[in-house]
Amino acid sequence: MEIMTNPAFLTAQLITAFKKIVGDSFVLVDEESLYNYSHDETEDLHYLPEVVIKPRTAAEISEILKICNRERIPVTPRGAGTGLSGGALPHLGGVLLSTERMNEILQIDERNLQVITEPGVITEILQNAVKEKNLFYPPDPSSRGSCFIGGNIAENSGGPKAVKYGVVKDYVLNLEIVLPTGEIIWTGANVLKNATGYNLTQLVVGSEGTLGIVTRIVLRLIPLPKHDLLMLVPFNAAENACAAVSAIFRAGYTPSAMEFMERDALEWVSKFLDTSSVPIAPDVQAHLLIETDGNNIEVLMQEMEGISAIVQDFECGEILFAEDAQQKAELWKMRRRVGEAVKSHSIYKEEDTVVPRAELPVLLKGVKDIGRKYGFHSVCYGHAGDGNLHVNIIKGSLTDEAWNGSLKEGIKEIFALVKKLGGTLSGEHGIGLVQKEYMSIIFDETQMRLMKEIKKIFDPNNILNAGKIFD
Amino acid sequence: MEIMTNPAFLTAQLITAFKKIVGDSFVLVDEESLYNYSHDETEDLHYLPEVVIKPRTAAEISEILKICNRERIPVTPRGAGTGLSGGALPHLGGVLLSTERMNEILQIDERNLQVITEPGVITEILQNAVKEKNLFYPPDPSSRGSCFIGGNIAENSGGPKAVKYGVVKDYVLNLEIVLPTGEIIWTGANVLKNATGYNLTQLVVGSEGTLGIVTRIVLRLIPLPKHDLLMLVPFNAAENACAAVSAIFRAGYTPSAMEFMERDALEWVSKFLDTSSVPIAPDVQAHLLIETDGNNIEVLMQEMEGISAIVQDFECGEILFAEDAQQKAELWKMRRRVGEAVKSHSIYKEEDTVVPRAELPVLLKGVKDIGRKYGFHSVCYGHAGDGNLHVNIIKGSLTDEAWNGSLKEGIKEIFALVKKLGGTLSGEHGIGLVQKEYMSIIFDETQMRLMKEIKKIFDPNNILNAGKIFD
Repeated sequence: MEIMTNPAFLTAQLITAFKKIVGDSFVLVDEESLYNYSHDETEDLHYLPEVVIKPRTAAEISEILKICNRERIPVTPRGAGTGLSGGALPHLGGVLLSTERMNEILQIDERNLQVITEPGVITEILQNAVKEKNLFYPPDPSSRGSCFIGGNIAENSGGPKAVKYGVVKDYVLNLEIVLPTGEIIWTGANVLKNATGYNLTQLVVGSEGTLGIVTRIVLRLIPLPKHDLLMLVPFNAAENACAAVSAIFRAGYTPSAMEFMERDALEWVSKFLDTSSVPIAPDVQAHLLIETDGNNIEVLMQEMEGISAIVQDFECGEILFAEDAQQKAELWKMRRRVGEAVKSHSIYKEEDTVVPRAELPVLLKGVKDIGRKYGFHSVCYGHAGDGNLHVNIIKGSLTDEAWNGSLKEGIKEIFALVKKLGGTLSGEHGIGLVQKEYMSIIFDETQMRLMKEIKKIFDPNNILNAGKIFD
Repeated sequence: MEIMTNPAFLTAQLITAFKKIVGDSFVLVDEESLYNYSHDETEDLHYLPEVVIKPRTAAEISEILKICNRERIPVTPRGAGTGLSGGALPHLGGVLLSTERMNEILQIDERNLQVITEPGVITEILQNAVKEKNLFYPPDPSSRGSCFIGGNIAENSGGPKAVKYGVVKDYVLNLEIVLPTGEIIWTGANVLKNATGYNLTQLVVGSEGTLGIVTRIVLRLIPLPKHDLLMLVPFNAAENACAAVSAIFRAGYTPSAMEFMERDALEWVSKFLDTSSVPIAPDVQAHLLIETDGNNIEVLMQEMEGISAIVQDFECGEILFAEDAQQKAELWKMRRRVGEAVKSHSIYKEEDTVVPRAELPVLLKGVKDIGRKYGFHSVCYGHAGDGNLHVNIIKGSLTDEAWNGSLKEGIKEIFALVKKLGGTLSGEHGIGLVQKEYMSIIFDETQMRLMKEIKKIFDPNNILNAGKIFD
């Protein structure tokens, strides 16, 4: 592991100024702290910041950004550091600004089915808090137990429920942000419909911390569904599993989750979790994890029966129906921790491909063909209902030379295929630092110009998460 | 009625150039044509364009815009001209560019539950075409029988189903647009999830034709619900009707429509349609029209029962349950044509207020109080489930002086109240020409600067629908 450092931007005087704003204990320059904030969950990348600052309020962030803007100091905003595209890596050094102290849920508005929260709240804590009021905030990335809601907004996160309930952007009504210039604005209003000027809210969602720092968030909520059912369906051919996905939707069903896992994914996670709770028959190549939810248990059972009948047409094996809450939790735990299992197995690169859902079989076949051509093994899994396939490329026995060299050509071929199928680079992980070199596969010069000029409007001195998404 | 004209921008040479691009018969300069395109459905406003051009393709639009950009000629894009905020009014003269010939549904993709369409398709035609494949495109403005899907995207339209299914922005996956410079781009990809760069798609949705001209549209579809049920609930106090709305959602129900109509609205539309199919008891002050939909008729009947029990707590009268498709159609026709009925009754101004749903009773009371203060009568109706109240201010016996003068102070007070309640100027009609003077009530200088600078990136010479949304 190589740790990258950068030229210094900060004087003792500036450090003193930051301490005056947020208090001495929240400006960290010791080696251990700098190291702790030098990485997120992206590959094995490390970049040291010069200082870690932990503000508590939008006003404090505003003061910090005014200084950085004046002095042209790079600022990298960071939530929980669970990102997979390097969005929170301080690759230029400078200030690492952590929102971890902004961790209060400010109001659960049961009258309007809304929640107002600070960005540093862990997603699962927010979900549980609204659940207690019988309300539901659906977007739940696999990292929901540790990721922050602010980071979810930066990346426009998804998760398994997106297939029925949509992604983060579908729940964000209004955002308070601090611009790189220090100005504080709200992006919209606390309403379900809005035709009042340009949609600044949706411009900020998914902008990966490059346009402003989100300090307050207004989310819409929905009534909590009373029941859910879960089944795991094995297939002897991975492409059949992918093909079944589209057939289920065409038959009029909208499952609340529809997850795909290649054999390796399930096998590796079983080993990682040291569990044998899901026996995998020798000829099984892939699984679909299918959930339905709603208020009427009989309707859900009918839906499960209907879906079971459809998957039979795709040569599936024996279906495992989760019998109780514990078995459901076990299956979900396995699905959620595939990423970690892969990571523990080998150095890997994850491509977050997304295509129209019916093109999944073509994409999967293409990924494997390209892998054979370039000599890499991949483990694929993800949100099949959304056409969102996480392609985990395993370093395994690849040489460093191939890993850092010819492999990129293979990845480019994957993305060229994705584009041909009507898809794009990332469904939910963002572009950040490690995917930006592929942007030109998807976007032409005009599209890139528009994005870069939007960045300039918000951040004229290019201090905020500069070099992320594009150079 | 006053018809406004503007200084001339066009030479005979330019007219010839336009004819060369689109063909002689699609460049109109005769008086009748210019008159026909001088107005939309906004109040009684008329502005004459200098020429009406009807291109067929994005390439033709690109050529036209290149000329207009070079010559600094104002261009007003127009769909079906059903807008209510003056977005399609050619208030600066110049070129009126109609998308009416771009009226083909290009592909209904049943495998991916998507439709690709041109912008000049009538919304209801699109809805019916996908319905034949058992698919559903929910957003349906009252004008769906005549409005274009392209106009719906420009305004981020809603309609009654928005309360359960969301607005136009929730269905747009990807847009082909022609920039004012003539460049043609796609804004995104044909996928359900996208974390790849800034969300240009959502920036264009609701931008009222100021950033580019939409030439192709990719919409996601959902499975068509098999059943729906409808009921009309009378209330003796309008504020009780509004209060019931929030209670229904808090009880865990999500109706597929939840429409509010003041007594006058229903009475006027009954008269306008010459029907007595809904008897209105003397003490009734307002109605809620409530629809549920889904695949299981028994579940829907249970929901209707549950909702009926809730509305009883708000002193409702006898509930009318629609017995068959014909009665449902009759009730929906009445709701959909309230706007026309009001228009036929008097000159009026419509304010498209939107607030968090539970604040509706406060908003309604405030509107009436402000009306008393400024001496105007209002008829209120709209999408109560979304907190979207259309406030129709009736000219009635108001003098022209008051109508064009002091009334504006009253409207400003309404919007100040809306803002205080967490709402904004427009839920679904847009700002266009007639609401822009109120933008400063909602937005501060920084927000306005960001919007204006975004406009400049897309349209450096300010030729495309200039003077709409803001000056």
